[in-house]
Amino acid sequence: MSTIVTVCRNEHFNAAHRLYVKDWSDAQNNEVFGKCNNANYHGHNYNLTVELTGPIDEQTGYVYDLKLLSDMIKEEVLDKFDHKNLNLDTEEFKTLIPTAENITVVIYNLLRKKLPEHLALRIKLYETERNFVIYPA
Amino acid sequence: MSTIVTVCRNEHFNAAHRLYVKDWSDAQNNEVFGKCNNANYHGHNYNLTVELTGPIDEQTGYVYDLKLLSDMIKEEVLDKFDHKNLNLDTEEFKTLIPTAENITVVIYNLLRKKLPEHLALRIKLYETERNFVIYPA
Amino acid sequence: MSTIVTVCRNEHFNAAHRLYVKDWSDAQNNEVFGKCNNANYHGHNYNLTVELTGPIDEQTGYVYDLKLLSDMIKEEVLDKFDHKNLNLDTEEFKTLIPTAENITVVIYNLLRKKLPEHLALRIKLYETERNFVIYPA
Amino acid sequence: MSTIVTVCRNEHFNAAHRLYVKDWSDAQNNEVFGKCNNANYHGHNYNLTVELTGPIDEQTGYVYDLKLLSDMIKEEVLDKFDHKNLNLDTEEFKTLIPTAENITVVIYNLLRKKLPEHLALRIKLYETERNFVIYPA
Amino acid sequence: MSTIVTVCRNEHFNAAHRLYVKDWSDAQNNEVFGKCNNANYHGHNYNLTVELTGPIDEQTGYVYDLKLLSDMIKEEVLDKFDHKNLNLDTEEFKTLIPTAENITVVIYNLLRKKLPEHLALRIKLYETERNFVIYPA
Amino acid sequence: MSTIVTVCRNEHFNAAHRLYVKDWSDAQNNEVFGKCNNANYHGHNYNLTVELTGPIDEQTGYVYDLKLLSDMIKEEVLDKFDHKNLNLDTEEFKTLIPTAENITVVIYNLLRKKLPEHLALRIKLYETERNFVIYPA
Repeated sequence: MSTIVTVCRNEHFNAAHRLYVKDWSDAQNNEVFGKCNNANYHGHNYNLTVELTGPIDEQTGYVYDLKLLSDMIKEEVLDKFDHKNLNLDTEEFKTLIPTAENITVVIYNLLRKKLPEHLALRIKLYETERNFVIYPA
Repeated sequence: MSTIVTVCRNEHFNAAHRLYVKDWSDAQNNEVFGKCNNANYHGHNYNLTVELTGPIDEQTGYVYDLKLLSDMIKEEVLDKFDHKNLNLDTEEFKTLIPTAENITVVIYNLLRKKLPEHLALRIKLYETERNFVIYPA
Repeated sequence: MSTIVTVCRNEHFNAAHRLYVKDWSDAQNNEVFGKCNNANYHGHNYNLTVELTGPIDEQTGYVYDLKLLSDMIKEEVLDKFDHKNLNLDTEEFKTLIPTAENITVVIYNLLRKKLPEHLALRIKLYETERNFVIYPA
Repeated sequence: MSTIVTVCRNEHFNAAHRLYVKDWSDAQNNEVFGKCNNANYHGHNYNLTVELTGPIDEQTGYVYDLKLLSDMIKEEVLDKFDHKNLNLDTEEFKTLIPTAENITVVIYNLLRKKLPEHLALRIKLYETERNFVIYPA
Repeated sequence: MSTIVTVCRNEHFNAAHRLYVKDWSDAQNNEVFGKCNNANYHGHNYNLTVELTGPIDEQTGYVYDLKLLSDMIKEEVLDKFDHKNLNLDTEEFKTLIPTAENITVVIYNLLRKKLPEHLALRIKLYETERNFVIYPA
Repeated sequence: MSTIVTVCRNEHFNAAHRLYVKDWSDAQNNEVFGKCNNANYHGHNYNLTVELTGPIDEQTGYVYDLKLLSDMIKEEVLDKFDHKNLNLDTEEFKTLIPTAENITVVIYNLLRKKLPEHLALRIKLYETERNFVIYPA
């Protein structure tokens, strides 16, 4: 029986965003989102950790080649979000608010459908050095 | 059905402490606590991570406003412990030894009673860059 | 004669920006600025170090109260740039390109005029964990 | 009933290794392991986190003395692997490929047999700042 | 002619301290030192970088054996200050205020007299991740 | 007159090495180089900072395009040293001992001859998180 471990890869991207509910007044958006509601956007360096859990291949000693994982993250996540305005430049956040919570779930879904089914996936996203999100919890 | 994620906030405080059991001899305290038993105290920069797990609000994209969480940590934890002597200046450690383990559980209890019940709470406390504690395990 | 030392304070802000020369064609801007020319902006977590060099006050043991320095940085720099679009929301970068180099020099000038003349000033600005700027060199 | 927490200790070691399957051709090894198959080895600074989960001792406020844990890690792990060639200088990796996955499981087994049975153990191993492994998952 | 380079070693210690001028009133001390004047002390994890500048030895490729430097820092600095109350437990700060500035200069003087004369010395001391001091400037 | 600033780029590589003087006895090498003399090599993750000092271009706001600098570092340094055995796989350290000091000077020379003459160059190399070298001093 194979040993189950978690392998993790860190990547990063830089993006602009704005947090606001379109149907709300400015006052309401400012009350809930504060400075994050700045009309001309602000931005972050996002640090992303992708964690895969599965059996160690007995021959290669790998759970999943982290070079392949890095390439997959580049294609599915970084090429979409890096150096972009999340609200204006992406399909994913045309209507969905680009909070760190929602970005994390979106990244999970983008990678989940590309990964082998036998691997469990977890995403950790640092919006700043002080604020971060983990999914699944 | 809402998606459940974990949102996390880092804060920090600086404090002095001494580890010893009042009923023990000096020799016994030195054997168990070593340098941490220094009679005139020593100190640390404590780095604290507070993790909340719960559903993403579909309208705001938030699990819990991290600005509010930061304010709560300030009121309930930092105002009590920052720039203090944990043994002498706090109610919490008048009789309880201020090990990193006990400080972590105390911080959990201080925040638990202020947070909405539907949110799960976890605390991570770095006493140094090399030693840290997580609660619940 | 007083001992001369350097005291340093780290702060941070988050902002959106776009790098481009208004008089250039899109092709020319893309060739020079690449992804940083994204029309809808992108963003960064900027980490800022402010270094002051001067004599230690013999009575207080301070070169300059870092709490005061932190307040000054907040008023002169963070209130201007944090959670802002540098190109659209600031006077400083209406015509000046907001490269890390230029932001660093602008911050130097904002703080220089508020600080006592006997203190030398140096600014270090991290645009990402991989790219940073120091001024004066 | 005692409170259960997790206490963690960071240590580090530096080692050389090479990833390859002895029965495979050079072409096959290069395809799977790429640069990690370099015949003359390459190396890493490994950062190791050892996590112990168990009850807080009511008298000492400790789960386990982290100084003792640090000594145990030194004897069981660092003395074996630090400043060594994992493929050539260690019994553990004479036939087992020294991938980060396998090193993590080996370290788990080395410490597991020395630790009290009532403590749960988890290992986190950073091979680089970008790649790391957790066991048990 | 030998090439001149700078070699650097990071170490750390944990200590308690209090900032106040003995001849001042409580009000005056609170105004200048704020929370750092807490009567029962507070504390920090100090991160220390020692930099030596000198010629590379052509045979060994070393400027100075960093293992010897680490031992010297342990003997001259850490054994004095680690897990101590700087105000109460040390000769150096019986009358001198233990600000980060003064601690840095004291460490410089302790090491300067033990090091070969042909090596230039510089000290960097982090009191927290946000505040640090460099000497000579 | 242009403003002079320093722009910096971090990169990293992983390599194996052994420190020893070929003409010395084993005993002599062990006395000077200790564990670093392990006959089968050990290894490190090297973190490299390249600093360029020069005038800001008034039109682009750049001192030097850090993307070009990153490409140059890849070609001149990483392709030579990453995932290599410095003693066996490189021309540069066939006879020169690969201490952090010597590696730093070698990297300086490799980049110096590729960079425009009007830019000053400085190299910082972390061999571990605790040991690093700066050249020129």
